[in-house]
Amino acid sequence: MQGKIALEEHFAIPDTLQDSAGFVPGAYWDELQHRLLDIHDTRLKLMDAHGIDLMILSLNAPAVQAITDRETAIDIARRANDTLAEECARRPDRFRAFAALPMQDPDAAARELDRCVKELGFVGALVNGFSQDSLQGDGETPLYYDLPQYRPFWGEVAKLDVPFYLHPRNPLPQDARIYEGHPWLLGPTWAFAQETAVHALRLMGSGLFDEHPSLQIVLGHMGEGIPYMIWRIDHRNAWVKLPPKHPAKRKFADYFNENFHITTSGNFRTQTLIDAILELGADRIMFSTDWPFENVDHAADWFDAASVSEADRIKIGRTNASRLFKLE
Amino acid sequence: MQGKIALEEHFAIPDTLQDSAGFVPGAYWDELQHRLLDIHDTRLKLMDAHGIDLMILSLNAPAVQAITDRETAIDIARRANDTLAEECARRPDRFRAFAALPMQDPDAAARELDRCVKELGFVGALVNGFSQDSLQGDGETPLYYDLPQYRPFWGEVAKLDVPFYLHPRNPLPQDARIYEGHPWLLGPTWAFAQETAVHALRLMGSGLFDEHPSLQIVLGHMGEGIPYMIWRIDHRNAWVKLPPKHPAKRKFADYFNENFHITTSGNFRTQTLIDAILELGADRIMFSTDWPFENVDHAADWFDAASVSEADRIKIGRTNASRLFKLE
Amino acid sequence: MQGKIALEEHFAIPDTLQDSAGFVPGAYWDELQHRLLDIHDTRLKLMDAHGIDLMILSLNAPAVQAITDRETAIDIARRANDTLAEECARRPDRFRAFAALPMQDPDAAARELDRCVKELGFVGALVNGFSQDSLQGDGETPLYYDLPQYRPFWGEVAKLDVPFYLHPRNPLPQDARIYEGHPWLLGPTWAFAQETAVHALRLMGSGLFDEHPSLQIVLGHMGEGIPYMIWRIDHRNAWVKLPPKHPAKRKFADYFNENFHITTSGNFRTQTLIDAILELGADRIMFSTDWPFENVDHAADWFDAASVSEADRIKIGRTNASRLFKLE
Amino acid sequence: MQGKIALEEHFAIPDTLQDSAGFVPGAYWDELQHRLLDIHDTRLKLMDAHGIDLMILSLNAPAVQAITDRETAIDIARRANDTLAEECARRPDRFRAFAALPMQDPDAAARELDRCVKELGFVGALVNGFSQDSLQGDGETPLYYDLPQYRPFWGEVAKLDVPFYLHPRNPLPQDARIYEGHPWLLGPTWAFAQETAVHALRLMGSGLFDEHPSLQIVLGHMGEGIPYMIWRIDHRNAWVKLPPKHPAKRKFADYFNENFHITTSGNFRTQTLIDAILELGADRIMFSTDWPFENVDHAADWFDAASVSEADRIKIGRTNASRLFKLE
Repeated sequence: MQGKIALEEHFAIPDTLQDSAGFVPGAYWDELQHRLLDIHDTRLKLMDAHGIDLMILSLNAPAVQAITDRETAIDIARRANDTLAEECARRPDRFRAFAALPMQDPDAAARELDRCVKELGFVGALVNGFSQDSLQGDGETPLYYDLPQYRPFWGEVAKLDVPFYLHPRNPLPQDARIYEGHPWLLGPTWAFAQETAVHALRLMGSGLFDEHPSLQIVLGHMGEGIPYMIWRIDHRNAWVKLPPKHPAKRKFADYFNENFHITTSGNFRTQTLIDAILELGADRIMFSTDWPFENVDHAADWFDAASVSEADRIKIGRTNASRLFKLE
Repeated sequence: MQGKIALEEHFAIPDTLQDSAGFVPGAYWDELQHRLLDIHDTRLKLMDAHGIDLMILSLNAPAVQAITDRETAIDIARRANDTLAEECARRPDRFRAFAALPMQDPDAAARELDRCVKELGFVGALVNGFSQDSLQGDGETPLYYDLPQYRPFWGEVAKLDVPFYLHPRNPLPQDARIYEGHPWLLGPTWAFAQETAVHALRLMGSGLFDEHPSLQIVLGHMGEGIPYMIWRIDHRNAWVKLPPKHPAKRKFADYFNENFHITTSGNFRTQTLIDAILELGADRIMFSTDWPFENVDHAADWFDAASVSEADRIKIGRTNASRLFKLE
Repeated sequence: MQGKIALEEHFAIPDTLQDSAGFVPGAYWDELQHRLLDIHDTRLKLMDAHGIDLMILSLNAPAVQAITDRETAIDIARRANDTLAEECARRPDRFRAFAALPMQDPDAAARELDRCVKELGFVGALVNGFSQDSLQGDGETPLYYDLPQYRPFWGEVAKLDVPFYLHPRNPLPQDARIYEGHPWLLGPTWAFAQETAVHALRLMGSGLFDEHPSLQIVLGHMGEGIPYMIWRIDHRNAWVKLPPKHPAKRKFADYFNENFHITTSGNFRTQTLIDAILELGADRIMFSTDWPFENVDHAADWFDAASVSEADRIKIGRTNASRLFKLE
Repeated sequence: MQGKIALEEHFAIPDTLQDSAGFVPGAYWDELQHRLLDIHDTRLKLMDAHGIDLMILSLNAPAVQAITDRETAIDIARRANDTLAEECARRPDRFRAFAALPMQDPDAAARELDRCVKELGFVGALVNGFSQDSLQGDGETPLYYDLPQYRPFWGEVAKLDVPFYLHPRNPLPQDARIYEGHPWLLGPTWAFAQETAVHALRLMGSGLFDEHPSLQIVLGHMGEGIPYMIWRIDHRNAWVKLPPKHPAKRKFADYFNENFHITTSGNFRTQTLIDAILELGADRIMFSTDWPFENVDHAADWFDAASVSEADRIKIGRTNASRLFKLE
């Protein structure tokens, strides 16, 4: 399919480049570095070759979220966003931008998002899971965005009316004992999905979407496993007629259906896509590749031939993103 | 459908009853206690009313697995198994048994399984996730069964040629920081699936099934989320042509397809069932209710009308279990 | 689901009542007569009871299409439409109308459609398959609407910008030798679908939609079998690289995807609905019951619980029809 | 996938070659002739190249069925079968045979089947729809095999315990008025499926499978559209509580589920395959290509990558056929 839009597509600035080093074997690091730093060469050629009109770019992971010093986090986010704005300005027809945000400081994050959207023309934010802040708790506690201190931030997101992409990061070592001896389960194999799914469920359970029903969260990797389990999440022990003891007023499926979108990034499986269509509907699914960690051809060849209707291919490939991000 | 077989169906003995107390609000505890201790009254009536010919019974959770004192674990397992054997002997046409196993002591677990299968006629084992053993590590480290000390145990399972049901338990509090402030995500809502899926993936990654290719593991709750993600597990970063750094020789999907079965327990969702059929095939899916935590009528009414072929309904409802557990 | 819109919903006037007599055993004829003549009593109660906000009503079958005398056909169509307009005017919030059309005379049909849309506020037409006209051919030849004499009529439909529901009728006896000795295969069991599917394929193959690309045809009964076979229709003998010898310029699937909608009338099967979603996409599927030949509760109970996403349920149940027929 | 078995695979003898002439444009006739007459050259190379271990071969269509002179039909069938037996004997590891049968004469057909199975080692029969017999009716009436004179033949089929492949042929011109002006709808585009589906439904409705419940009929082209409509076939006018007026005692779906198998021949569509799996179950679906009318690579490339479970791929690709035809 021609004219695709892809939205989990990463780049790095020199300050954040090393964050991606551990995700591939050493022999591939040169190639990955090139892929991350490049915007207008290899990336654009692959987009041309595989029918991708537009990429919405975002900083690599965990980057800003793992910088425990607030001021550094704020500075890196700002510089990454400025760099990205410049790159996009060279080809506004082919690249748009998600803001990196220093979520360690909710006020600074809100201000940076405001700046990126209003001054730089960014179409939303992409944040790499929980943040760590040396000034909060023991200085390394994962800060999830359902915590009360983030409510004003979400108010600003709602006001700006831009989507928020909740991208994975790995759990901290002290929270990853279950993976001990099995490092291959970290990252995209499994831990990314678990970490991000729980973060999303925390948002749902916190009542956030009751307070800001217009918020739109994007999850990658076909929804990080949630679609397959969403019924069970709401229906455990269904003979127990007491309401669950969380602040949220509605079923999790209601929030998932109304406040979430998912992308195909890194999960190029038709069976999984069909299940997502039968749970969430095709209007909330969007094509993405997860470049440079996944190949553009792997994503596009699969998607262009996936066994879904042509109507849904057009939606998932282009028009859902175009509408959500007001690209046309 | 008449003649169904169900195999994630729990009971308790007085010593293990309290382990289930936290899973329902206080107002439901009386009812849950009755359900757990009852075998021949309410349970059998519900089976009759909803077309369940046979239940394979198992002890509640976490029970034996959470008893850090080895001797007590061994003793409780033995007593639970003896009790269950007696109950099954009263209605061998309606009840069969899974052994509870003191996995703290791999040798004792192997011996107990041998006794249960050979002397008591049990059809397999059901174990509630990791075990804790005061004699190992810091006395509370979760012991997953991919650890080297469990290889001889698995040899015994393979020799006895009986399936092993890997049932969930919650992570320990120190491993559950991600759920802090969101206790509703523990248990069947989400944490059970994460805990059990990772345990299953550890088994796959450990090379266990290369050494014992005939082992058959059963997962509940429609596979604890694995079917939706199994492609990504094997295909992360597919442009990286180095083999993954785990001991296993094959793709995880190969083990999942050849060494695993899943049940419908507590995940009564047709969309999810269809995805499971398209990933794993109908021959490795089996009906279960998760009584007494889920209702028999919820499970059976859903399953009897689920939008799958009648051929698959018969397989999933009965003949797969009948064949796997050599019931006829 | 509340607020459903249904659009294959029939009524009769006394002149056309007998046309429905053969479709049910004698013992059911009294009940069927009542159902056909009633608008505001049983029908409305059932709509209320099963969450149907609005029915778009149409004359029973074959009615006007089987009246070989042109003037009578024109007269009956006009009177049926006038009657329907009056009935709808009593409850414009609950009933809208499809025009019956004397297709024996394409000009008269175009004029009647014009009158119905512009003067009576009808939202489209529903025609019961081929027409017979004593003035054409041997006086009984089935007239399919791909024939050249119908092009001006279609021009008028395109100009009026209203959908055209192609409803089944049985083949003439001389064309039904294959069903000899098997009368139960006539009507809704099978012959309706064959007759209507071929009629639809004739429209596609005729080049009609190249000339009038905005035309929108509605098929009942989940598309009369076309979705399951549409790939084969376009891909027979795919090694033969010559274009097919029909006037149409594009693949049949292109027309099916862009010029057709289907309804669930009388085909309340989730497996079939899922296939339709995967072929045509949920935006072109609309809920319908086929009252009074099918029960409203059968249709609604099935649809309200069918294993599709809630987003698709809302579309199929209401918003697709609302948009297509400009009802809001 | 390696090791596939394919079973709608045709050849011709010089006497029947011309029957296939009309199915492709003249420019392709040379190639088609070669494909039909060849067994051990192109065909075998393609099988090797695309992982097909074994083809069960059958005569082209309509061949024997359209020979209105009984004796000629009997003779041609016999000669075609003898030729096929010889060809298979050259490579019994790669080719097996379906008998052509002179159904004009039910006794002769039964005798020929008996001979083919017992003396020549054939694994079943493939018959090209209805037969015409100059000695019956008006000499050209289509003879469908639900007619009473065929019951003894079916008794012989049941006794021999071999499957019967009901392959399409086109309706006679006098029965094809609906296709007038649209010849592209004849043959594999549409008419084949309609003709064969109705023939199969006639068998179901005739009570044949009540009398011979062990009979196994194979339909090509993913079941000729029946799976998508099977629910409606049984549930039309479900509020009418009178039993349908046909001799069959059970629902059509029961016969379809227990007496029919389908193949993928010429319908290489994953959506359609998924629907078939959800209606009929994967145990009754078998891979086929429809060579030489379809390409082996089109069939195999599609099937090897189709979005179904690996377990089902093995069944559909090989083991279902192996079991049904007792090939191992």
